[in-house]
Amino acid sequence: MKAIILTIGNEVLSGQVVDTNAAWIAQQLLEIGLAVREKWSVADDISEIISALANATDKGEIIITTGGLGPTADDLTTEALAEFMKVSRSFHEDTFDRLSKMFASIGRVPGPQHKIQCMLPEGVTILPNNAGTAPGMYFNFEGRHLISMPGVPMEMKAIFDPFVIELLKSVRTGPRRRSHTFNTIGEGETVLEDLLKVITANVPSNINFAFLPDIYKVRVRVDVDSDSNEDILLWEEIIGQVRSILAPCLAGENEVTLEVAVGNLLKQKNWMAGTAESCTGGYLAHMITSIPGSSDYFKGGMVAYSNSIKSEYLQVSQDILNQHGAVSEETVKAMAIGAIKQLKVDVAVSVSGIAGPGGGTPEKPVGLVWIGLANNKGKVMAQKIKLRRDRLNNIRAASIMALILMHRFLLDE
Amino acid sequence: MKAIILTIGNEVLSGQVVDTNAAWIAQQLLEIGLAVREKWSVADDISEIISALANATDKGEIIITTGGLGPTADDLTTEALAEFMKVSRSFHEDTFDRLSKMFASIGRVPGPQHKIQCMLPEGVTILPNNAGTAPGMYFNFEGRHLISMPGVPMEMKAIFDPFVIELLKSVRTGPRRRSHTFNTIGEGETVLEDLLKVITANVPSNINFAFLPDIYKVRVRVDVDSDSNEDILLWEEIIGQVRSILAPCLAGENEVTLEVAVGNLLKQKNWMAGTAESCTGGYLAHMITSIPGSSDYFKGGMVAYSNSIKSEYLQVSQDILNQHGAVSEETVKAMAIGAIKQLKVDVAVSVSGIAGPGGGTPEKPVGLVWIGLANNKGKVMAQKIKLRRDRLNNIRAASIMALILMHRFLLDE
Repeated sequence: MKAIILTIGNEVLSGQVVDTNAAWIAQQLLEIGLAVREKWSVADDISEIISALANATDKGEIIITTGGLGPTADDLTTEALAEFMKVSRSFHEDTFDRLSKMFASIGRVPGPQHKIQCMLPEGVTILPNNAGTAPGMYFNFEGRHLISMPGVPMEMKAIFDPFVIELLKSVRTGPRRRSHTFNTIGEGETVLEDLLKVITANVPSNINFAFLPDIYKVRVRVDVDSDSNEDILLWEEIIGQVRSILAPCLAGENEVTLEVAVGNLLKQKNWMAGTAESCTGGYLAHMITSIPGSSDYFKGGMVAYSNSIKSEYLQVSQDILNQHGAVSEETVKAMAIGAIKQLKVDVAVSVSGIAGPGGGTPEKPVGLVWIGLANNKGKVMAQKIKLRRDRLNNIRAASIMALILMHRFLLDE
Repeated sequence: MKAIILTIGNEVLSGQVVDTNAAWIAQQLLEIGLAVREKWSVADDISEIISALANATDKGEIIITTGGLGPTADDLTTEALAEFMKVSRSFHEDTFDRLSKMFASIGRVPGPQHKIQCMLPEGVTILPNNAGTAPGMYFNFEGRHLISMPGVPMEMKAIFDPFVIELLKSVRTGPRRRSHTFNTIGEGETVLEDLLKVITANVPSNINFAFLPDIYKVRVRVDVDSDSNEDILLWEEIIGQVRSILAPCLAGENEVTLEVAVGNLLKQKNWMAGTAESCTGGYLAHMITSIPGSSDYFKGGMVAYSNSIKSEYLQVSQDILNQHGAVSEETVKAMAIGAIKQLKVDVAVSVSGIAGPGGGTPEKPVGLVWIGLANNKGKVMAQKIKLRRDRLNNIRAASIMALILMHRFLLDE
């Protein structure tokens, strides 16, 4: 059973909005064992939407659209759905009531554009939207399951989980997909593929490997498409083999990403961590605090963007700054030691570098980053990396490498 | 002249990777006046790729593919391109030479999988890739312009700019699209659409408005598809009218986003800013420092995740923390005042809230966030917001609102 995801909206086509909905929906489908066959983005244009719906119902059994359900004039999905299914639209009282209550709670009343939003195609099953005005809709059309949701991610998610999930579970046929993900760090995609060749060369065709590279990280996913106990046992055995091969470069498995793994190591040791950032400008602290419950092991951090904060707060001496510069082994070591003292933490990680596009010199080019680590027992180390990305990706890459080095530092203790 | 973007890769379909390439490419095309008609994502599967190429050459004059050019076994784009165009593949010496030199520079040699990567379809024009092994390729196929690039964003960008840009400029026909974007803050999409109705109701069909909502921000884009001086003059006149209507909620225009606008105000005043963050955990500082040159007006920030850092470093008194709690008007005001003193800055913004999913109470639920502002002349203020998103989006929303309030605070001076 294959799904097609259709993203509707000029803003997605123009690139002014990155389509995160499609990726999120695909992940949710995978969790209940449904695979996405194709994803398309089309314009807010009735004939384009109808042609895409025709194509989609041809290729997949489940069609999920997002976008084009808002109250403004460029929102045309409802109209296109009705034309495509050759049904009329009528005013949906319940939807208007819900909308009126929603507006009343903020002291307003719906406008005429919201009445148009309640003109829904015949045969609709409403998928309640508790987060906004646009209705979620389900149609069983000629044996195809057609689901339409708004494009605002928060509203889409509020409809998807639980309503769409439950709906899809009830219509799902065919073997379920089970997936297991290994979150590796520090090795490239081809190296990992070579390491695992001894396994991948001999697996049956319903077990598949995927290598998903990110900066300094590769996720290795092992899928099985089967409901037979024998196949699932073989899949579990293969997961065990993969685990032992990947052990030296493994941060964690499934939801245990690098950030979570670092947090788990800190909790095991009952240690509090801190950060001292220059070029990453707060992104490293953000990565750490993106994990719920991180206050159990993260005390705080300093964004020491100017040298005066490095010297005044982190106690990096003027001698070090003058002699070696802000981007140097000596400075990041002093920053990490300063963070240990000032934040009163057990372990600290520091970053200083040139994120670009400006600020480079022949000796210290854009992309040069030093990362420092220290604990409260006097252990200090530093490592240099050289990046060649744009500013935002250099910031991200430096933050990820800082976490990888922290992971190693904690394991070595 | 319409473009179709084709993203090839199982990892995009499974949602394990968000397709940022397609959005980036669409933006670049828009800049040289080319619009994207559709975007599709297909699996690493030869017949699916061929069927998508057939569809794409049917619907658009320019077809841009990314992904599937790597050295691993699941990379099938080159093979699919050859089959689709019904041409053979041959070993491309120049590409292998480039690759060998690239490997030699890091003390390695290409493997057999890299030789396969150099088997390119007849009729190829190489688009040089200075950032990785996969070749960029151009084909003029039956009057269609077929461009194939690797999926790794850094490599794709290195090929696109300048090679693909120059190529597309030379083949472009039809009227050019010109775009102007207004970056508004604090008002919703429908309010803005209503405000602008007096203009939008009377524009010719080659001038189009788009409303692109984000959290607390809406970009309003005005496009003209024409090369006639008369049309362009009218478009410029309309932009002037839109500017006066949107003035009360405008952060900036085109590349002047909220972050850039805040930086510009700080530079005008010759002020240094600082941050004191609790629940946003560094993301607010990251937003500010994502702008090149931000060290001219951003001195640094404190991620005061634990109360002890709020009291010890930011000098929030124990009385305030005990009486009002960490998430309160009194605390964020004290945090902002503390940041002014400790970071020795002219203006500081502070945030404390409950990002979720845990940590909420009946009085202080998940999503409650206080934002504080202070300057070094004794002016202090605070504002409360209530969010209903997931953790990461609450962090992002609170950071954006903190910047919006800082923008107002600076304008009011």
